[in-house]
Amino acid sequence: MKRIISLLILLATVTGVFAQRPPRLSSPDVNPDHSIVFRYYAPKAKEVILHGEFLKEPMAMLKGDDGVWEISVPPVTPDIYPYFFKEDGVSVADPNNTHIFANERFKRSIVDVPGDEPLIHSLQNVPHGKIHYNYYESKTLGRTRELLVYTPPGYDATSTKKYPVLYLIHGGSDTQETWTKVGNANFIADNLIAQGKAEPMIIVMPYGNVRPSPMEDFTKDVVNDIIPFIENNYAAYSDANHRAVAGFSVGGGQTLNIGLTNTDKFAYICSYAPFTATPEFKKNFENWSPDAQKINEQLKLFTVSVGTDDFLYESVKGNLKMFEEKGIEVKPYIVSGGHTWMNCKQYLATTLQEIFK
Amino acid sequence: MKRIISLLILLATVTGVFAQRPPRLSSPDVNPDHSIVFRYYAPKAKEVILHGEFLKEPMAMLKGDDGVWEISVPPVTPDIYPYFFKEDGVSVADPNNTHIFANERFKRSIVDVPGDEPLIHSLQNVPHGKIHYNYYESKTLGRTRELLVYTPPGYDATSTKKYPVLYLIHGGSDTQETWTKVGNANFIADNLIAQGKAEPMIIVMPYGNVRPSPMEDFTKDVVNDIIPFIENNYAAYSDANHRAVAGFSVGGGQTLNIGLTNTDKFAYICSYAPFTATPEFKKNFENWSPDAQKINEQLKLFTVSVGTDDFLYESVKGNLKMFEEKGIEVKPYIVSGGHTWMNCKQYLATTLQEIFK
Repeated sequence: MKRIISLLILLATVTGVFAQRPPRLSSPDVNPDHSIVFRYYAPKAKEVILHGEFLKEPMAMLKGDDGVWEISVPPVTPDIYPYFFKEDGVSVADPNNTHIFANERFKRSIVDVPGDEPLIHSLQNVPHGKIHYNYYESKTLGRTRELLVYTPPGYDATSTKKYPVLYLIHGGSDTQETWTKVGNANFIADNLIAQGKAEPMIIVMPYGNVRPSPMEDFTKDVVNDIIPFIENNYAAYSDANHRAVAGFSVGGGQTLNIGLTNTDKFAYICSYAPFTATPEFKKNFENWSPDAQKINEQLKLFTVSVGTDDFLYESVKGNLKMFEEKGIEVKPYIVSGGHTWMNCKQYLATTLQEIFK
Repeated sequence: MKRIISLLILLATVTGVFAQRPPRLSSPDVNPDHSIVFRYYAPKAKEVILHGEFLKEPMAMLKGDDGVWEISVPPVTPDIYPYFFKEDGVSVADPNNTHIFANERFKRSIVDVPGDEPLIHSLQNVPHGKIHYNYYESKTLGRTRELLVYTPPGYDATSTKKYPVLYLIHGGSDTQETWTKVGNANFIADNLIAQGKAEPMIIVMPYGNVRPSPMEDFTKDVVNDIIPFIENNYAAYSDANHRAVAGFSVGGGQTLNIGLTNTDKFAYICSYAPFTATPEFKKNFENWSPDAQKINEQLKLFTVSVGTDDFLYESVKGNLKMFEEKGIEVKPYIVSGGHTWMNCKQYLATTLQEIFK
C-alpha cells in the first residue's frame, strides 16, 4: 500500500511538472498529395499567421477549442521550405519541429515536402557519406573554428586513393551548418555519386561570416588555414585541378573573391546569386585588370547562377557583364526562382555534376 | 556615369531588401565578470521577459528608443544555460543567437558563460575529436535514422587499435544532437582525454524518441541495429567490458532497460536522473527477479545520478531502493542541482572518468 501511495504521489508530481508544458503536437504533417497541415498551441493568442516560402501571401490559421491553431495548406511543389508562425505579431519557429534553419538573425523552421519520385536532395536508400564536425585553428583569425566536412561513401582516410575538394560557402547570415541542415548538400552528393553523375569528392563547409572583412580575411582563412587543415587531415588532392569553390549570396561574393584572386589554386569557381554590393568587392574588382587569357586557361569552369526572381538578378547580370567586358569566360546559369535555398540546392546539384570532370 | 547610377540603383535595391530585416544585435554578450547582457528587437511589444535557467525568477527587459529591449543580468555561475524571451506572452528563442537547444517541443537558446579557468565542457586548446553524422538502416524500426558518433583525437578507423564505446542517450524531448549541442559531450571527452582522466573512446549518440515504445523498441534498435552498425563501421571493441550505456531523464530510464536487460552486452550502466514512471518500466521491473549475483559479477559499474533539487529526486531514491532490495550493487551519485543539462554535463564528466578502466 505504501508503495502504491508513493507511486501515486510520484505520478502526480511527474504529471504536474510535465503538464506545465504545452501539448505535443504533430506539426508539420505533410500529406501524400503534398498538402501540409501546420499546428501551433497558443490558447491566449488573438491571431496566428503562417509565413512560408511555399506561399505567395501569409495565411491566417484557425483556432480550435483546445487552444491549437491549425491550417491546411493546399498542395505545394515538392521541395524543402522555410516557414514560421506569427503569434500576435511575434515571429516564432514551430516548437514541435526540430528542423531549424541554421541562421544568425532569424529562427525559422523547415518543412520537407517529398516528391512522388525521390528528389535529388532527399534521403534515399543509397550509400551515405558522412558529415564530420571538425575544429581547426585559424591563425588568420586567432581562434579555433568549427568546420563541417562531407566525406563520400566508402571514404577511407588512409587509402592511397585521393579525393578532389569542393569548398562550399553559405549565405550572409547563415552558419557552417546551413548547407547541410537547409541545403541537404550531403544527400545531394550521396544521390549524384550513387547515380554516377558526380565524382566522389570531399565537401568542406566553413563558417564564412568573418567581420568586419568577409572578403579579405575570410579569403586568407580559406587559403592559409582551411586548405592546409583539410590537406593535412583528409585524403585530399592538393592541386588546383582538384579544388573547387562555390557559395551563395554573400558567400557567392566571397567565392568570386577567393576564386578569382587565386586562380592558381582553384580550377572551378561556382558563384550562386552573389551579393557584391560591398566596399571590399568594389575595391578588388572595380579597377581589376586581370590577365584574362591566363585566367581562362587556368579555370576549367567559372559559372555564375541566379534566378530571374532573385532580388539580385539585375546586379548579377551586371557582374556577368563586367566579367565578359574584361574577357573572362563565364558560364551564366539562369533559372526561375528567387534568392532562396530552394534555388541554392538546384545550383549545387548542377555544380556537382560539372566539376572534377 | 551610367555605371555610377546603376550602382546607386543597385545599392538602393539591396539596402531596401535588407532593411526589411530586424537589425543585427549582439546578444547575448557575456562579460568577463560573468554578467550577461541580452538584447531583443521588438518595437511593438508591450513587455519582454527574460527566462533563463541561471535565474530564480524571470526578469523584465527594458525597451530603448530604438525598439531594442535590453537587460543586464548580474554575474552568474559559469556554465551553459538555456534561456528564452517572452514577448507579450509568446516564447521565442534569441533571433541573434545561433546556439539553439536541440529539442522537439520548445525552441530555446543557449548561453555559454566561460569560467575564469576553462571549464571541463569548454572548447580548449587540446587535440579535438570529431563528431560524425551517420545514417544507418534500422531494421527494427524500418527506416533510415541519423546517428551521431564522436571519435577521439587521433582516431584511425583502419589501425589495429580498437576503442571502447559509450552509447549515450538524450532526454525525452531532446534529439540526437542534444548531447553535443547542449551537453558539449565532445569537448568534455576531448578535455578529459587530454588530461589523461578518460580513456580514448567512441561515443555513440542515437535518437531515442521511439514511439510508442521507447523502452522495448529502442532497446531492440540499440542492440540489433546500432551496435552492429558501429562495430562494422568503426574501430570498436565488441565485448561487454568495452561497452557502456548512459542516458538522461527518459534516456536514463532507457539506459536502465537497455543495460539491465543486457548485462552480457554492457559492463557499465550509468543512469542520469532516470524517468521511470512509465508502464513499460513497470512491466519490466515491477516483478523483476534478477540473478543479482550474476549481474553484480557482470557489471563493472552501475551508477544512478540525481540532483537533490531534481523533480525526480524522490523517484530516483525509490529506484535506488528497489535495486538495493533486489541485491543489485548500485553506486548513487547524488549532487546538488535540478533536472537540467547543467547537471547532465557533470554526470557525464564523472562517468567518462570511471568507465573502461
